Amino acid sequence: MSHPIPTWAETAPRLVAVAAGRDAADLVVRNIRLVNVQSREILDGWQVAVAAGRFAYVGPDATHCIGAETQVIDGRGRYLIPGLCDAHMHIESGMLTPAEFAAAVIPHGTTSMFTDPHEIANVLGLAGVRMMHDEALMQPVNIFTQMPSCAPSAPGLETTGYEITAADVAEAMQWPGIIGLGEMMNFPGVINGDAQMLAEMAATMCAGKTVGGHYASPDKGIPFHAYAAGGAADDHEGTAEADAVARVRQGMRSMMRLGSAWYDVESQIAAVTKRGLDPRNFILCTDDCMAGTLVNDGHMNRVVRHAISCGCDPVVALQMATINTATHFGLERELGSIAPGRRADMILTSDLTTLPIEHVIARGRTVAKDGQITVDCPHYDWPDTARATVHLGKALDADAFAVKAPHGANAVTAKVIGVVENQAPTKALTFELPVTEGRVQASGEVCQIALVERHRGTGGVTNGFVSGFGYTGDMAIASTVAHDSHHMIVVGTDRDCMAQAANRLQEVGGGITVWKDEAEIALVRLPIAGLMSDRPAAEVAADAEAMVAAMAACGCTLNNAYMQHSLLALVVIPELRISDLGLVDVTAFQLTPLFEGQP
Amino acid sequence: MSHPIPTWAETAPRLVAVAAGRDAADLVVRNIRLVNVQSREILDGWQVAVAAGRFAYVGPDATHCIGAETQVIDGRGRYLIPGLCDAHMHIESGMLTPAEFAAAVIPHGTTSMFTDPHEIANVLGLAGVRMMHDEALMQPVNIFTQMPSCAPSAPGLETTGYEITAADVAEAMQWPGIIGLGEMMNFPGVINGDAQMLAEMAATMCAGKTVGGHYASPDKGIPFHAYAAGGAADDHEGTAEADAVARVRQGMRSMMRLGSAWYDVESQIAAVTKRGLDPRNFILCTDDCMAGTLVNDGHMNRVVRHAISCGCDPVVALQMATINTATHFGLERELGSIAPGRRADMILTSDLTTLPIEHVIARGRTVAKDGQITVDCPHYDWPDTARATVHLGKALDADAFAVKAPHGANAVTAKVIGVVENQAPTKALTFELPVTEGRVQASGEVCQIALVERHRGTGGVTNGFVSGFGYTGDMAIASTVAHDSHHMIVVGTDRDCMAQAANRLQEVGGGITVWKDEAEIALVRLPIAGLMSDRPAAEVAADAEAMVAAMAACGCTLNNAYMQHSLLALVVIPELRISDLGLVDVTAFQLTPLFEGQP
Repeated sequence: MSHPIPTWAETAPRLVAVAAGRDAADLVVRNIRLVNVQSREILDGWQVAVAAGRFAYVGPDATHCIGAETQVIDGRGRYLIPGLCDAHMHIESGMLTPAEFAAAVIPHGTTSMFTDPHEIANVLGLAGVRMMHDEALMQPVNIFTQMPSCAPSAPGLETTGYEITAADVAEAMQWPGIIGLGEMMNFPGVINGDAQMLAEMAATMCAGKTVGGHYASPDKGIPFHAYAAGGAADDHEGTAEADAVARVRQGMRSMMRLGSAWYDVESQIAAVTKRGLDPRNFILCTDDCMAGTLVNDGHMNRVVRHAISCGCDPVVALQMATINTATHFGLERELGSIAPGRRADMILTSDLTTLPIEHVIARGRTVAKDGQITVDCPHYDWPDTARATVHLGKALDADAFAVKAPHGANAVTAKVIGVVENQAPTKALTFELPVTEGRVQASGEVCQIALVERHRGTGGVTNGFVSGFGYTGDMAIASTVAHDSHHMIVVGTDRDCMAQAANRLQEVGGGITVWKDEAEIALVRLPIAGLMSDRPAAEVAADAEAMVAAMAACGCTLNNAYMQHSLLALVVIPELRISDLGLVDVTAFQLTPLFEGQP
Repeated sequence: MSHPIPTWAETAPRLVAVAAGRDAADLVVRNIRLVNVQSREILDGWQVAVAAGRFAYVGPDATHCIGAETQVIDGRGRYLIPGLCDAHMHIESGMLTPAEFAAAVIPHGTTSMFTDPHEIANVLGLAGVRMMHDEALMQPVNIFTQMPSCAPSAPGLETTGYEITAADVAEAMQWPGIIGLGEMMNFPGVINGDAQMLAEMAATMCAGKTVGGHYASPDKGIPFHAYAAGGAADDHEGTAEADAVARVRQGMRSMMRLGSAWYDVESQIAAVTKRGLDPRNFILCTDDCMAGTLVNDGHMNRVVRHAISCGCDPVVALQMATINTATHFGLERELGSIAPGRRADMILTSDLTTLPIEHVIARGRTVAKDGQITVDCPHYDWPDTARATVHLGKALDADAFAVKAPHGANAVTAKVIGVVENQAPTKALTFELPVTEGRVQASGEVCQIALVERHRGTGGVTNGFVSGFGYTGDMAIASTVAHDSHHMIVVGTDRDCMAQAANRLQEVGGGITVWKDEAEIALVRLPIAGLMSDRPAAEVAADAEAMVAAMAACGCTLNNAYMQHSLLALVVIPELRISDLGLVDVTAFQLTPLFEGQP
């Protein structure tokens, strides 16, 4: 794999010369307590010397490495820890481009990320993955790309903008920044021996890279074992201690996540802290972080801090966010520890428990100090194809959202997607709904939902009903973040508002808009693929906060309501969802008519 | 890397089908206590199912994997442990070919070896390495080859049969069985930035493979750090706890060896057992085992047993001989644990402390039971170039071993290689020796030593003197095992015997011969490169035992005298050695005249 910085092999002559004292280091950090994640020790008074972005010397005295031009940092007795690694995550979840995501997390000490651009793959296919990959490689920290494995997530139940094939996977394995295959979430496919899924994993393994896993079922019996036999090397879908234990026993690494809405560390880390299993196969990650979390709470520093608060030894918790991750991806000699030859990614912190991130150095260069980023995170020149991805075909009017009743009916029994607070699964409900002028009317707690096709401009609109948001008055909310195929989801009480919201997103190139009484009251612009903004995280977080407030102004009482909204087309999680092909019964994994009694 | 068995990727469809219960396993082992080296647990009552040589199912109940043709082994409540790995070793040290070495160690439970054919590289160059590599890949167990890095070991001080170049290394990295670079023993070269050594390591790293280390100095200061910066990933030359600690702190793996003459585990393992360092970076190996050790004492089972007797937890000790090794070489998803997809290498043992090796299975097939091998270890068709490597140019006579005195001298002060019992370093001694008919006469405790050129048939003989063996009467011993350039070392008290011994080794194609009173009293035939026999280990061990008895019959009183003999040309270990170029002062690293006062 080519590197965004010269390889150890290329740099070795200089590293040796610096360590031997024949050449001067670029940087020396001294007066530190070095956290050695290889030996699991704290080494007081050690010093490090850096040359060409890599550690040249790590030992008790780097004086011989200091020359006239060497920058010397006094650690003032603080701890020096390796830069933190996020082992599995989706940049798009922050609604930020890789550059702006990097800019948001660097001050939190994240210097390596393993990202699966699954969302953009659904919108722009392999070309979109390549754009994310290319912007990732431009950053001053390490962003490795996991090639998305499953677009569409549910073949036959939805139409994505693009599909990922086994040939795409094989091609991507040759790109310089690809580290492996993104989470293989089609676990029923693997278990059933689906040829495409096995071919994707085979292409990854043949390239000597890591197959990411995603086994999202509580069944740890035969299906789980069959999935493990397929080749997934890790899994981050565990939620209970038994899940973590089961994965490690199968020779998979257990990735434990603390994201904006994932809280899976506390339960699972007991496998180490209480059961005493070997910690080497446990890894920390975030999976999904909203911009607001990055702005207000942190990133991997938040996860490590949390793991420590759950009773994990601080050095072991740091191993789970550094060397364990590096080893997992075959990078243990490239990053994840403070040792000769590795990328010089490190953090000064004055406390190993509260983990304040005071000074971040990546590849030997200061990238953040006291919470402020000190480097540029360059932007990729996103092409028009990535900026114009909302294709409605034509402007929509209220009529597009009309639901015709069966001929002559005065009322219908409609299937309704029942949103449940703080849960990803929905309920398959039924409601009696009145018919006016041949059209079914949402009423009471039920409002309308529409899946608006936006990839090919077919003008297709799938209408249905949803309950649980609590919306009142005339309103609508539309979003082009609509997992996993990312068409447009519009929910509303008023068909005019719904049309206005949908048209507005076409106008701005995607994002989230909230309308009330036929006026826009909030807008989050996400012009890149309709998923991401290239503005800073703080601005996006502020817009998102205003959007949530606007939802509340429309009567929405749910916690995390926007996430619920964006998941209503996720046709792999039970019970009832909507797609461009119709209403989907995700228990039976088939399309289902909107009204009871229809064929 | 291509595999001698189908890859996991190729096998995955069947493994998944077996784990799911749709296809029958080839083998099921049940009624076992499974030692899980991933989680560091013992799992009572678990079962494993194997298909196509790999684990398909590892869990509580493999009943669904059993079909009419499935072989079922009842473990009778015994432990099932992974097959053992030897992380660094030289097959030639056993004086056996890879096939016969494998046959000797399989009953001891060794199923993976990482071998550096450094000795044959000196004799036959890259072609010889390829022969070893090819025979290795023919075996029923896993023998990976480390490409030798340093032939000659001491450029300018000796002439090898062939030299290894950086281009050779780059070429070998493409071979299917090459796992990395063999021990980079030219550590002064690395520290000084020697271009060839750095190029060899760069070629290895660029191929994504592991650079073996060899830092044989007690100095853990600046030179050690410079060596670490060069890229060596491991080191097995440590002898004290501080050595092991220092290596792990540098992000290298500490390989601790117990060979026939190496006893470096007990001192170093305290870094784990007493100091409490993370065990993951500690690995067990043998480095060098004589055939007699393999026949009488064991192989990696002996090392693991010893580690346990030194206070190491048995499961941790097993990790050091299984998963730690696999991870080090980038093979953690290929072997070294009992988990889905891995090569089905496993051992049944009834006791985790004494570690009796009762049933060995490699790649799903029983390869040994109750100490007896049950499979063939196929022999490579060694070509004549490998079988005719003793080229003296002409038959030697006693005159070839005559040491001419300076003109007119009645006596000389000669430099004498002083052998020290149980130590590799020699002493640089001087003795007054008488002169008769213009020739210096060995006398008393001093006898003659000759380095006979045998690679190019130059007829070259370097004569000198050695003390410490205790030889009496008329005798000679000759050996074509003569580290590292493997010419022929002849030691004797009688020049006729010396000539007879040398000529005899040319006649039989190499080995070791002992002559007393002008008759051969022992012979170890080593026809392959003059280093190895293709007969079984027990026969070679018996011959070697007879050879040692013959040395004793000649008056030799030293422990391990043959090893001393074979190391007398090892011009990288102080103080005085002999090479084809002359007497070598290994303190000054230069050639030195035989007599005091000579220029």
